Amino acid sequence: MTDYRTLRVALLGAGAVGSQVADLLLKHGAELADRAGATLELAGIAVRDVDAKRDADLPRELFTTDAETLIVGSDIVIELMGGIEPARTQVLHAIASGADVVTANKALLATHGSEVFEAADQVGAEVYYEAAAAGAIPIIRPLRDSLAGDRVVRIMGIVNGTTNYILDRMDNEGADFADVLAQAQALGYAEADPTADVEGYDAAQKAAILASLAFHTTVPLDAVHREGITSVDAAMIESARHAGYVIKLLAVCERLTAEDGAESISVRVYPALVDRAHPLASVHGANNAVFVQAEAAGDLMFYGAGAGGVQTASAVLGDVVSAARRHIAGGVGVGESTRANLPAVPIGHVITRYQITLEVDDKPGVLATVAGILSEGRVSIATVEQTVIEASADAADSSASAGSATGAGSARLVIGTHKAREQDLSETVERLAASGVVERVVSVLRVEGN
Amino acid sequence: MTDYRTLRVALLGAGAVGSQVADLLLKHGAELADRAGATLELAGIAVRDVDAKRDADLPRELFTTDAETLIVGSDIVIELMGGIEPARTQVLHAIASGADVVTANKALLATHGSEVFEAADQVGAEVYYEAAAAGAIPIIRPLRDSLAGDRVVRIMGIVNGTTNYILDRMDNEGADFADVLAQAQALGYAEADPTADVEGYDAAQKAAILASLAFHTTVPLDAVHREGITSVDAAMIESARHAGYVIKLLAVCERLTAEDGAESISVRVYPALVDRAHPLASVHGANNAVFVQAEAAGDLMFYGAGAGGVQTASAVLGDVVSAARRHIAGGVGVGESTRANLPAVPIGHVITRYQITLEVDDKPGVLATVAGILSEGRVSIATVEQTVIEASADAADSSASAGSATGAGSARLVIGTHKAREQDLSETVERLAASGVVERVVSVLRVEGN
Repeated sequence: MTDYRTLRVALLGAGAVGSQVADLLLKHGAELADRAGATLELAGIAVRDVDAKRDADLPRELFTTDAETLIVGSDIVIELMGGIEPARTQVLHAIASGADVVTANKALLATHGSEVFEAADQVGAEVYYEAAAAGAIPIIRPLRDSLAGDRVVRIMGIVNGTTNYILDRMDNEGADFADVLAQAQALGYAEADPTADVEGYDAAQKAAILASLAFHTTVPLDAVHREGITSVDAAMIESARHAGYVIKLLAVCERLTAEDGAESISVRVYPALVDRAHPLASVHGANNAVFVQAEAAGDLMFYGAGAGGVQTASAVLGDVVSAARRHIAGGVGVGESTRANLPAVPIGHVITRYQITLEVDDKPGVLATVAGILSEGRVSIATVEQTVIEASADAADSSASAGSATGAGSARLVIGTHKAREQDLSETVERLAASGVVERVVSVLRVEGN
Repeated sequence: MTDYRTLRVALLGAGAVGSQVADLLLKHGAELADRAGATLELAGIAVRDVDAKRDADLPRELFTTDAETLIVGSDIVIELMGGIEPARTQVLHAIASGADVVTANKALLATHGSEVFEAADQVGAEVYYEAAAAGAIPIIRPLRDSLAGDRVVRIMGIVNGTTNYILDRMDNEGADFADVLAQAQALGYAEADPTADVEGYDAAQKAAILASLAFHTTVPLDAVHREGITSVDAAMIESARHAGYVIKLLAVCERLTAEDGAESISVRVYPALVDRAHPLASVHGANNAVFVQAEAAGDLMFYGAGAGGVQTASAVLGDVVSAARRHIAGGVGVGESTRANLPAVPIGHVITRYQITLEVDDKPGVLATVAGILSEGRVSIATVEQTVIEASADAADSSASAGSATGAGSARLVIGTHKAREQDLSETVERLAASGVVERVVSVLRVEGN
């Protein structure tokens, strides 16, 4: 048996991920030592309540409520408390104490990343955060190292398991959002307060982290355009299916190059239509995937569990091993890139394709009017499908019920556009709504992934 | 503009990948410098014939036939010659000269990996080989670093683009192997001599590299069981489709744990049945994917281009940036794991599921006889499907042609087994063939991926 140097590891937090990390550190100590080249001694676990129930059976003597004292003298501090405070204070304390930090805290990094990384730079410490971007999926090292000689053009990520689970069930069962959300909550796939997931806040934090890495720049959270999935209903899913699409909550990170060569980026989270033949369309249940397009490498996809205590613990422990190797090697940095400061464009400047669904009067000349408004608005039509709507207003119900309730009857227009500027598109949709021939704008969805 | 230190880079080989690497190094110099923290100066390109035609327009003065002199004084040597010699000699020369080596040479690493890595260890040099395992797909760093705190249980990889292209077209078109191979050769997807691809030699080399990394052990190439796809025909593909499977050439790397806790591994390459709902089933064309199952992380998949000059160049340049960062940081190692020496079990000890397709006499008692032989051989039946075969002997042709040509007529039996030991299975198949009731063993295929 090799005689390894011992490194002192402090764990902050013992929730779903933290308790699994502690359990694996204790169970697989010998194997981890072979991987790391150092014995990893779990010095203690800082928690708010020493007596709280944990997911794993851990020695009671490891627990303490005094994070500050635990941190001092530690070589590696694992922060799994989540949230901004006291996580931020403890992470900065750990860095100041000379420790490397491993964290899964996407909220902290998306809002105070610069502060944390600068503090680490100043003392030569490292911050590892594989688990903060896409749970168990190894995406940090591929973006930071493997693709460092390439240029990432675009990322499309399914980075929130709860919303993918909900959208996938809606797609499979034709169910409505509220029903599936209630079931997801009952099964533990969604929180009692689902806002962070269903409104896209969680995905936006991960998008900021991924874009920062991919484009070697700093992306503040407020530069991320964010829309959630609460407005997605069964009719939209059915209509998407009919057109060969599936609706996914996507985090899109894009590099834009102006004609004069000036570069900017767009980072946005919204429900979008994805072609059913696209690799992202086959990401089911609570799984995540990050689809990366790079100039030389072409299309890459990274797939796996985006959440889960033990799955995320895998990513955390990979970081702990990396931190330990760094300590043994003498504290040399992992070689982060020089960071640019690429401007993030507002959502209005984004160029993508759209699917516009309208209810219009079913009478002659309406399509010409609609097409004219689109053309004036610099929105070019790629496809149009018109169907007559029965009075029940349920497009999915094809049984011939009573005649039309309105005088002229209604039709549904599904318009697929070529690439258009978001601002042109939204102004055009406003003009359509006010045109007199459009009864209702049913939905406007972006189409991503060519 | 930052004032960077200059690192001298020597390139050996200017084929499809090498010429793209040179082109990108020259074109993206400033951006690569920001990534690497060093200016990467392409000192020269060693080739056999200075005047040969290249895929990229490169300055003639960079070319030399004197690799040995070019290597001396270089900080990073990129070996893209392929093959064992003179690649091996030049790589060892580069290491001895104090350079780090970046290589895409799977043949070299699979056969002389230990020699190369030991030589590097002795002088504190590093060998980077992201492009040797799965082309442009970042798989080395995820296995070596991201999953270093986890335990990989199994890898199933589609790691050869040519064979995936052939099998995918056979699946889409119902075409036969020889026809699709000829088309693939005409289109440049397959070499004039396709042996290395279609006989599984290329996949076996990559399997040895992946298994070595995943299990932190040394896997010699001759420990890899290898079968190619030349025996796969249209009828097998059709029969697989009927049963809900697709045939893929898989590189399977498996960790086996005996009851007493002793560990061994199995590494094998063969055409196998994969459930159509499995993520690997949707890997089309010449794309590659590596599906990884780890104890904590669960199922992960890495997808992308497995070959191609510019795609592979992306992986090579990622390694060059890593090597440069290491030089700038002062030459500290990347922290490879301690290596175990896990024994590789022979193919006969492998346990998996099988699909056995037999032509049998269509008369009473045959199924009982077949079932009896399987049971004696410790092969447990999961599913059986029996269909009567017309005299045309074309199972896919359901038109009622002339009656049976043999006296009793023939039936086709497709037997899906539960997990069985390969040796039990092959002995059982031999007994079936000799039983008198089996006219022909049509195919025996492994079923992978649960």
